[in-house]
Amino acid sequence: MSLSPSLEKLTSELGRLPGVGPKTALRLAYFILRSPKEYVSALSEALIDVKEKVKLCERCFSYTEQDICRYCLDLNRVDNIICVVENPSDIPQIDSSGAFRGRYHVLHGVISPMEGIGPKDLKIDALFKRIQNNVDTTEAVNEVVLALDADLEGDTTALYIAKTLKKYDIKVSRIAHGVPIGGDIDYIDHRTLGRALENRVTI
Amino acid sequence: MSLSPSLEKLTSELGRLPGVGPKTALRLAYFILRSPKEYVSALSEALIDVKEKVKLCERCFSYTEQDICRYCLDLNRVDNIICVVENPSDIPQIDSSGAFRGRYHVLHGVISPMEGIGPKDLKIDALFKRIQNNVDTTEAVNEVVLALDADLEGDTTALYIAKTLKKYDIKVSRIAHGVPIGGDIDYIDHRTLGRALENRVTI
Repeated sequence: MSLSPSLEKLTSELGRLPGVGPKTALRLAYFILRSPKEYVSALSEALIDVKEKVKLCERCFSYTEQDICRYCLDLNRVDNIICVVENPSDIPQIDSSGAFRGRYHVLHGVISPMEGIGPKDLKIDALFKRIQNNVDTTEAVNEVVLALDADLEGDTTALYIAKTLKKYDIKVSRIAHGVPIGGDIDYIDHRTLGRALENRVTI
Repeated sequence: MSLSPSLEKLTSELGRLPGVGPKTALRLAYFILRSPKEYVSALSEALIDVKEKVKLCERCFSYTEQDICRYCLDLNRVDNIICVVENPSDIPQIDSSGAFRGRYHVLHGVISPMEGIGPKDLKIDALFKRIQNNVDTTEAVNEVVLALDADLEGDTTALYIAKTLKKYDIKVSRIAHGVPIGGDIDYIDHRTLGRALENRVTI
């Protein structure tokens, strides 16, 4: 039971956001009502803007407002190594580690037979084409790092990419899965701990 | 570090919502980017709509899209009893209890000397005027129920209203504060329990 139709409409639209239940949606709607008009206009505009301006980078399929994203344009990055991620949001995360200075490639999902998502639904062919096009140039890729989750879908996707790239002289690697830095071994799940043991590193 | 200026802008605007930290704001912004354009337009419009259409009821100062809200227009409600609340959002809450069928009045805050909020900053005079105007009519108010929080500000406001209304032949009451239904006495704070004992009811 709401006080006005437009308040009800806003509550229902806000309720479709992830992690926002009916109670939170109502609280947010009341907050909007009490907020200055300038803020509400700015938020409303920012929503439209992001949909209108942001598109996919023609090279790596990350989000950008230009044709080519800044990671692809950055002259301080090496072209010979590509890091493959599931979503554009993974890129700033990985990049902020400072441990990777190559190029990126976004799949926009992972292979999931359960959900009917095959390689054709993803930017996987574009990755192969990208590698193919640069073979025998100075930009030739010699390593593909797969930064995918360690679940069934991530494993399937990693395997598929590794198999397809076998015909090239390219190293295919996968980021290490193991105990997080600062993580307490007491609280780590068995699968992670198992993987950490399998992938133990000689010191 | 964000992928585009408009994504960054949206994240910052979303981050101003209550309970939305930087991480959640970013997650919501990515969700918006992946959402169909129809949803984003609907949300954007709903934000603007609520600010443009919703205004304060001329009588009780609740939110409404007409001049007078539906609680004030409802012919099935009695005029002789007014429930005073802090915020418009309290009205549907109280109404859904089914225990009150009178009129409402929204103060839009409570008296708070600490924050420099006095009676003049609230819709308190409007309440007195509303009562005064109906004296000796069939709509004359004979009870004012204060549904305010049981904190210092709520107590101060309740006292102020009760004192001012002394000159009229009006009963001023306050909703009971005590142990919630279904609440476990083990887990109730001492102040609530103290209030519940003070206000014990003979059965």
